[in-house]
Amino acid sequence: MNWAIIVAGGSGTRFWPLSSPSRPKQLLPLASAEPLALEALARLDGLIPKERTLLVTGQALARPLGDALGLPAANILVEPRAASTAPALLWATAEATRRDPEAVVLSLHADWAIPDAAAFRRDAELGLRTAATHDVLVTVGIVPTRPETGYGYIVPGAPLDEAAKQVARFTEKPDAETAATLIGDGALWNSGLFAWSGKRLRAEVEAHAKELHPGLAALDRGDVAGFFSALTPVSIDVGVLERSKRVAVVPGRFTWDDVGTWDALARTLPRDEAGNVTYGAVHLKDASGNIIWSDGPPIVAWEVDDLVIVHANGRILVMPRVLASDLKKLVDPLPPGIRDLT
Amino acid sequence: MNWAIIVAGGSGTRFWPLSSPSRPKQLLPLASAEPLALEALARLDGLIPKERTLLVTGQALARPLGDALGLPAANILVEPRAASTAPALLWATAEATRRDPEAVVLSLHADWAIPDAAAFRRDAELGLRTAATHDVLVTVGIVPTRPETGYGYIVPGAPLDEAAKQVARFTEKPDAETAATLIGDGALWNSGLFAWSGKRLRAEVEAHAKELHPGLAALDRGDVAGFFSALTPVSIDVGVLERSKRVAVVPGRFTWDDVGTWDALARTLPRDEAGNVTYGAVHLKDASGNIIWSDGPPIVAWEVDDLVIVHANGRILVMPRVLASDLKKLVDPLPPGIRDLT
Repeated sequence: MNWAIIVAGGSGTRFWPLSSPSRPKQLLPLASAEPLALEALARLDGLIPKERTLLVTGQALARPLGDALGLPAANILVEPRAASTAPALLWATAEATRRDPEAVVLSLHADWAIPDAAAFRRDAELGLRTAATHDVLVTVGIVPTRPETGYGYIVPGAPLDEAAKQVARFTEKPDAETAATLIGDGALWNSGLFAWSGKRLRAEVEAHAKELHPGLAALDRGDVAGFFSALTPVSIDVGVLERSKRVAVVPGRFTWDDVGTWDALARTLPRDEAGNVTYGAVHLKDASGNIIWSDGPPIVAWEVDDLVIVHANGRILVMPRVLASDLKKLVDPLPPGIRDLT
Repeated sequence: MNWAIIVAGGSGTRFWPLSSPSRPKQLLPLASAEPLALEALARLDGLIPKERTLLVTGQALARPLGDALGLPAANILVEPRAASTAPALLWATAEATRRDPEAVVLSLHADWAIPDAAAFRRDAELGLRTAATHDVLVTVGIVPTRPETGYGYIVPGAPLDEAAKQVARFTEKPDAETAATLIGDGALWNSGLFAWSGKRLRAEVEAHAKELHPGLAALDRGDVAGFFSALTPVSIDVGVLERSKRVAVVPGRFTWDDVGTWDALARTLPRDEAGNVTYGAVHLKDASGNIIWSDGPPIVAWEVDDLVIVHANGRILVMPRVLASDLKKLVDPLPPGIRDLT
């Protein structure tokens, strides 16, 4: 049977001051009127039921996300510590396999913007089928729409069948020129949408992910705390996918965004004629290209361009959009009383 | 005896969203930690006592300003309608003269920034003395510090004595080039700091201010409502000073600002090394030349320059400083629920 693992992590700094521990990014309506995580769950509708959907997340997000998603309590897996994606995915995959030895698992994130759910399900199902048919780890590579420098790329290799290809190599965040060349050569974005069987993932971890080996015995005993304390944190990409030869890629032909920064809202939310994205009570005059968000007080802006202007959680942020990906540099040094949200 | 008339008017749009009916500009700390109106009163200390200080203002400001200033109730003159400065000053001067037939009156505004109170008193006293000695209407002309295009200018004429001169002419808001030429020729800013005796003002009104003539009989009866309803609104400058030949000017050698717009705060409040003026909880990084005011929530700004950023009365305003004098154009068309403050 097909299973889903929804991964929810992140410290939330990139949407300061909107995202907060009690209302993390995944629970914000950053791609539509619905919170991202509810969209992620709804996107699985008809493909994988809630009973076979696991949420893997940290202590901070478990309660608010679990409440919002309405998953069975047993399906919420709370990591004892943040240890990157390989331990989380291995644990969740093992849990699915424990309940269903023939489980084929789809891994996705709770904070994506994917407007076309049907297209997502079509390509996700292709990923699951490819994983089952060829007994490989599958990554669904998003067909790029711009030379994005913030993502990793997958270079496809020899065909496995009419849809799937082997992976020639992974490339981490390239510069813009390299990104354009990669796209010209047919490279795809590495989104984190993966599929595999429990047995195949376990075999590839045993073959390649030495960082996790000290914890495997504990994991097999069901000692999750022991697993997490014995392992060395490593991402699924570095620890497994980039080292294994049994990795395939299928194309994801849907619009996808990881909603990583304030700037991403210009891609995920509707824009007015002047390219402004607004949320809440916002009044503009001769303003263009701004991202303006208010959770309460009206924001009135005049003749300002390409700014991020936010009122949320009792803080106000004003900065150019181009700095959005560096927001951490601004926020981290703030006095804790200003920086920290509840 | 010397009397003072403090004039307080204005609709408050120019400091939106900070100034409000219950807390007008005159009660805001726009030049120091003290509200402007309290500074105006304190500035008279030792020159004219509270008992001989009259406040003339409209219905909306009478209560909050009267409470703040602590003047005797009989000294608060509430205009039945806004009718520009000539009716207000004629009425208040008549009221001073009724109580003290030998009154020489100093007229000033409640919203000025004048850091050197002693210098102000010295030149104000010179104005009062000149009014008494020469039996003229006196305007204290501020020695200009920049080619300001937002003020009127006074061109001095022939000397009356070692300090005072006749007024050759008044010039309304010039362009920048004309302003520079005027300053080169010794012109002074027309601030609204005036001095005169009750008899002289009345005589000049009778000779020149035909707009007020229909109301004079009512004024003489003490029928203020009748006075205001019969007259045609006119400023003291247009109705009297520009028409009369009995007008003298003495120089005001103190720093003066009418704190007319958000932009003025860059002149009246302290600036940081990067030229930012801030009030309240403001955190800046690589930002310069901004005017940032918060009455509550912290404002965090990064790499923005020469903006006005305000949170006040539950509204947020963001605009370039250079537009500050046109703020009315932005605010007037706003929905009443956003625009109107309480």
